Amino acid sequence: MAYTKTVKIKKIDDQVIESIEDAVVVEYPFTIFLNGEEFITLLCSPSGLEYLVVGFLVSEGIIKSKKDIEKITIDEEKGHAHVSLANNTNFVEKLFGKRTVTTGCGKGTVFYNVLDSLGTHPIESSLKVKAQSILSLSNKLNKSSVLFKETGGVHSCGLCNQEEIIIFHEDVGRHNALDKIVGEAFLKEINLEDKILITSGRISSEMIIKTAKQKIPILVSRSAPTDLSVGIAKELGITLIGFARGKRMNIYQGEERIIAPIRMTNYGLS
Amino acid sequence: MAYTKTVKIKKIDDQVIESIEDAVVVEYPFTIFLNGEEFITLLCSPSGLEYLVVGFLVSEGIIKSKKDIEKITIDEEKGHAHVSLANNTNFVEKLFGKRTVTTGCGKGTVFYNVLDSLGTHPIESSLKVKAQSILSLSNKLNKSSVLFKETGGVHSCGLCNQEEIIIFHEDVGRHNALDKIVGEAFLKEINLEDKILITSGRISSEMIIKTAKQKIPILVSRSAPTDLSVGIAKELGITLIGFARGKRMNIYQGEERIIAPIRMTNYGLS
Repeated sequence: MAYTKTVKIKKIDDQVIESIEDAVVVEYPFTIFLNGEEFITLLCSPSGLEYLVVGFLVSEGIIKSKKDIEKITIDEEKGHAHVSLANNTNFVEKLFGKRTVTTGCGKGTVFYNVLDSLGTHPIESSLKVKAQSILSLSNKLNKSSVLFKETGGVHSCGLCNQEEIIIFHEDVGRHNALDKIVGEAFLKEINLEDKILITSGRISSEMIIKTAKQKIPILVSRSAPTDLSVGIAKELGITLIGFARGKRMNIYQGEERIIAPIRMTNYGLS
Repeated sequence: MAYTKTVKIKKIDDQVIESIEDAVVVEYPFTIFLNGEEFITLLCSPSGLEYLVVGFLVSEGIIKSKKDIEKITIDEEKGHAHVSLANNTNFVEKLFGKRTVTTGCGKGTVFYNVLDSLGTHPIESSLKVKAQSILSLSNKLNKSSVLFKETGGVHSCGLCNQEEIIIFHEDVGRHNALDKIVGEAFLKEINLEDKILITSGRISSEMIIKTAKQKIPILVSRSAPTDLSVGIAKELGITLIGFARGKRMNIYQGEERIIAPIRMTNYGLS
């Protein structure tokens, strides 16, 4: 299925207007049915759809093990995913019991649930990574984002070991890109507790909560975090890095996991 | 209430690490109670809170006229808004009857509802604007975004006439920034049918649907639209412009409202 669509536009550049064809990113309504009942519609990029379904359901705590999934059928034309789950609780009630509209692409029931469930279980990981590796991975993420270069309309997300990006996804919604990674890692049974997650997007509370749920110890963004995400990172023992671009990065929390280069300290501050 | 928070961070720049203080944007959980019942929690920037509440409820079709609002009380410390509405339907059912997770900050019941309700009522506006005015307004929006310059963590949105930005808001969620504008315009009874809306953020289906609901004829982004938003713009008769930066812009739909400079046509395409 195409990830971009070509449209005729008028382009104005320095007082000159011309008719050209331009690629815009596809925003795809994708409806998940759980045990026959319409559950939710995601607006996403039509890639890694099975990973997105699984990742979304894992992030929401609806799928906990592979055994929970009996069958997943995806109809790309209709934009439907039919998921048969072993258990049959009231998922809608579960998902919409607490309603939080996040800054991002989640419908964000996430917010309360996790602070309740994870708040008391900080991540314990002895992972240590060189600052230089983080920068190298962040720059690789940037180079990998073909769809962004073509359309400017997506966010990218990468799951990394210390050397390379092992899973990469792009999506019109930065939360979907993360859920696609969660879903692929879940289905491939990849251990996440020694991995690094890198995103092109801003880090709101929901992004770090999704990361914490998967016990990923290091979250890196090429963009900005919010104060709430910094607070949650501290509470949940996650290393949070922002503005990781070129040769620069800001470590907001959890510096003990980062092997820094030359150390200069401002005694006034530290 | 503070819009930013100062945190101690470790900054790495070209192999050198130092301890500095940095400003991060505040992400503020803000819970709306309707007639005493907890309705929804928005994660937002703590500015223009009354406008956000009203704008959100207007965008969701829960408030249609000022008479619908009996009283709004905002408790900034608790992050609560208590709204008394004249009518007393089941708002939760109304809001969550159809569930769509958008690419953005809405919980996105919006999506279906509006294509149903607005799809058959395209916007009719004789507004015509010079391309140069659009670019000038877009550049003003960029200059106005102080919080973004400080933190990199917000999106800005401006309601404009042909000369200037008359309402400006920033928020960690680009949909919140738009709802703050909708709310302020609603309370100040500003006619929107001859206005231009400019956003720093990407245009997903939900952004253009919120714009269409307010009958705003021209939506301009400094960033990218999706194919779905281009399609909805066509269906609803909205002029959609993207990548409006410096001296450049792309007109995706509704060029009849834009007074263009020198015209050069690629006969092959137009």
